[in-house]
Amino acid sequence: MNSVQPRLLKGFRDTFATTMRTRQHLIGAAEQVLLRYGFQPLETPALEYADILLGKLGDEGEKLLYRFTDHGDRDVALRYDFTVPLARVMAQYTDLPKPFKRYQVGPVWRADNTQRGRFREFYQFDMDIVGSDSPLADAEILVVMQQILQSIGLTDFRIRINDRQLLASIAQQANLASALTSIFYTGLDKWDKIGGADGVAGYWQQHGIHHDTCQKLLELLQDQQSAAKMLSPTLERAKDLGLDQAHITIDPTIVRGLDYYTGIVFETTLTHAPHYGSVLSGGRYDGLIGRFAKQDIPAVGASIGVDRLMAAMDELGIDQTSSQSAQLFVTIFNPELEPLSLQTAAKLRQADVPVEVSYLSQNLGKQLKYAASRGIPWVIIIGPDEAEQNLVTLRNLQTGTEQKLPANQIVANIAPTGKAAPNRYG
Amino acid sequence: MNSVQPRLLKGFRDTFATTMRTRQHLIGAAEQVLLRYGFQPLETPALEYADILLGKLGDEGEKLLYRFTDHGDRDVALRYDFTVPLARVMAQYTDLPKPFKRYQVGPVWRADNTQRGRFREFYQFDMDIVGSDSPLADAEILVVMQQILQSIGLTDFRIRINDRQLLASIAQQANLASALTSIFYTGLDKWDKIGGADGVAGYWQQHGIHHDTCQKLLELLQDQQSAAKMLSPTLERAKDLGLDQAHITIDPTIVRGLDYYTGIVFETTLTHAPHYGSVLSGGRYDGLIGRFAKQDIPAVGASIGVDRLMAAMDELGIDQTSSQSAQLFVTIFNPELEPLSLQTAAKLRQADVPVEVSYLSQNLGKQLKYAASRGIPWVIIIGPDEAEQNLVTLRNLQTGTEQKLPANQIVANIAPTGKAAPNRYG
Repeated sequence: MNSVQPRLLKGFRDTFATTMRTRQHLIGAAEQVLLRYGFQPLETPALEYADILLGKLGDEGEKLLYRFTDHGDRDVALRYDFTVPLARVMAQYTDLPKPFKRYQVGPVWRADNTQRGRFREFYQFDMDIVGSDSPLADAEILVVMQQILQSIGLTDFRIRINDRQLLASIAQQANLASALTSIFYTGLDKWDKIGGADGVAGYWQQHGIHHDTCQKLLELLQDQQSAAKMLSPTLERAKDLGLDQAHITIDPTIVRGLDYYTGIVFETTLTHAPHYGSVLSGGRYDGLIGRFAKQDIPAVGASIGVDRLMAAMDELGIDQTSSQSAQLFVTIFNPELEPLSLQTAAKLRQADVPVEVSYLSQNLGKQLKYAASRGIPWVIIIGPDEAEQNLVTLRNLQTGTEQKLPANQIVANIAPTGKAAPNRYG
Repeated sequence: MNSVQPRLLKGFRDTFATTMRTRQHLIGAAEQVLLRYGFQPLETPALEYADILLGKLGDEGEKLLYRFTDHGDRDVALRYDFTVPLARVMAQYTDLPKPFKRYQVGPVWRADNTQRGRFREFYQFDMDIVGSDSPLADAEILVVMQQILQSIGLTDFRIRINDRQLLASIAQQANLASALTSIFYTGLDKWDKIGGADGVAGYWQQHGIHHDTCQKLLELLQDQQSAAKMLSPTLERAKDLGLDQAHITIDPTIVRGLDYYTGIVFETTLTHAPHYGSVLSGGRYDGLIGRFAKQDIPAVGASIGVDRLMAAMDELGIDQTSSQSAQLFVTIFNPELEPLSLQTAAKLRQADVPVEVSYLSQNLGKQLKYAASRGIPWVIIIGPDEAEQNLVTLRNLQTGTEQKLPANQIVANIAPTGKAAPNRYG
């Protein structure tokens, strides 16, 4: 076995402490908001029958499925998202009380092109309200989105909303042939990327929409009043629920790529990190969830782009995670004095202070060198003098200062020295 | 697509809110203890190259691997445990500071026999200290184990410990042929199941160990003093770190099934739920982690049987999770009064009270019926009278009592009514 090279699969990652803590913080903050609104956690398996996952992803999606034959000759696949498993759950547990408000967070797997910087295992965080077509459900999702972003310290963001029914009505008013609807949507979805109105009109014409129809479509899209009117039942309620309207923009160019949306759609961009694209998006999709149940079940939901949001927060210098790595290193002077050091560590841990104890049976100098190499700022030394005086020496390895004090005063004297520079493994 | 049956793969589960909350509570409690000792979270991918995972699991283990060929014709497999990925990590990141103290929690996958009630996707929680052979590392693991169990409300448990070196020395003293060592261990491991000393001796003889050697082995195993002496460096330190020795039993019959242990081994049983077997176990294994690094790297660790521990806690009636599902249901009297209801809900959520708002555009009676069907104890009604008096009606659906009060007094008046009977989805 010695010839096996330790290596990861392309598109897969090991996640070390710093990133883990940021992710846990983000997830915890979102959960806290969601619980206030009566959302409940759900976890579906990583592996499902392939026929469950197929059929709604489109050819592109199906190509990306991790699909294989298991030990019982079953055709199985790793989950691609949380929406299709949710549809399965709704059909399988027919006595599930509706509206069913659930969130699910965890990894999903897609055999995507890693050259475009995409990962094949990444975290997704979905929240959905299933079984209600009330605009109040749409409103709750909007408010929840805003509060999640605020709870992780983000203040400058824009939630752009639109309604698929408005787009359908515009297509109808412009007498667009229904075969061209998807061209209409696809072009619109590229608005920001291909230079706004002119670029989009060019795309439409290129794909068979007549010049005059293009002009008519653009004209109708500029009619902000129709959009505002269509979205007002949702926005009024969202306001009553606490939505800060300053974050909201009605934007008729918002479509969302997936073809299953049927009502409100929304995307969220960070004002100072727009290049990360939408970090929280979703909409109403009344056709998909009922797929297995053979009936329409209304649903509205949103999805946090966890990795994307973490990268953006990192770039913006937003970090609310307190460093939970050990900040205190207790040295062991010699075997006779080891019990004193261990008992001191035990007391600190009782007070919920993260402490590492030296495992080294080497001299003090080497132990201090080790602590410094780990970026641990505070070190405790209990030698014969300290033992006799019933004190400990607290040394700051960053400043080089030290003081002798009673053990019960350690905590009060290790006020944060700024974040210790963590190594790449945090 | 209408013909697709909504169903789960055998051995896989959907996890609903009640179970999710219990698991999150258990994991959170364990994490809090581990962070105090300087352990850091790590997450390795679900999918690895198959050659990484093969070779140390034994034939039995390899048969259970979910292994397949991916889109790039790579031989890949779902992780079977967290120990082999940890070995890969240690070899891959050569600058990782040692001792490396990490924990990892999440699902692992094994195509096990579901007839024996085993799941094919289940949660594992591992904690390990890699890169130190100090008895202090062993001691920390013992103390951490005890504190994790205590932190989730368990008081009656027994940590049984032994040392593989003691067993090796007993085998040597009894002149046991080294080819028979695994028979010696396997028999001993069955001690509780096959009727103690007589059963084990029978097993040994049946598998080729001479009668006299069996007697000698049993005799040596009864020598508690040697065991105590061998384990004392660890137990002394554990005591200094706060271990309550009342929970510890030295038990020479403890072996642990896996063949890679080289030093201390331990198992933990719950006094009032012994039939769940060991809920927290592990030991020192100095040979395995260095497998990829081509050198011995000492390591000691423990693993929580998450599902087993949750089942046992459930049976013992230990539940420290506060019900986080919505306890308050805000009805909507009519469209005109809807804003008042929504604003009241918003205020309660600001105070971190979980609240559900009615999405129903039906009359009050139906809304109350719905809340009752969900097991939500408290309901708020804001009708024209309440609106005029600037009050809300707070009704308890379980007792039928109600009172009118100002909205800011709701929280003070919804003291827990005992746990609402949750439906099976929590």
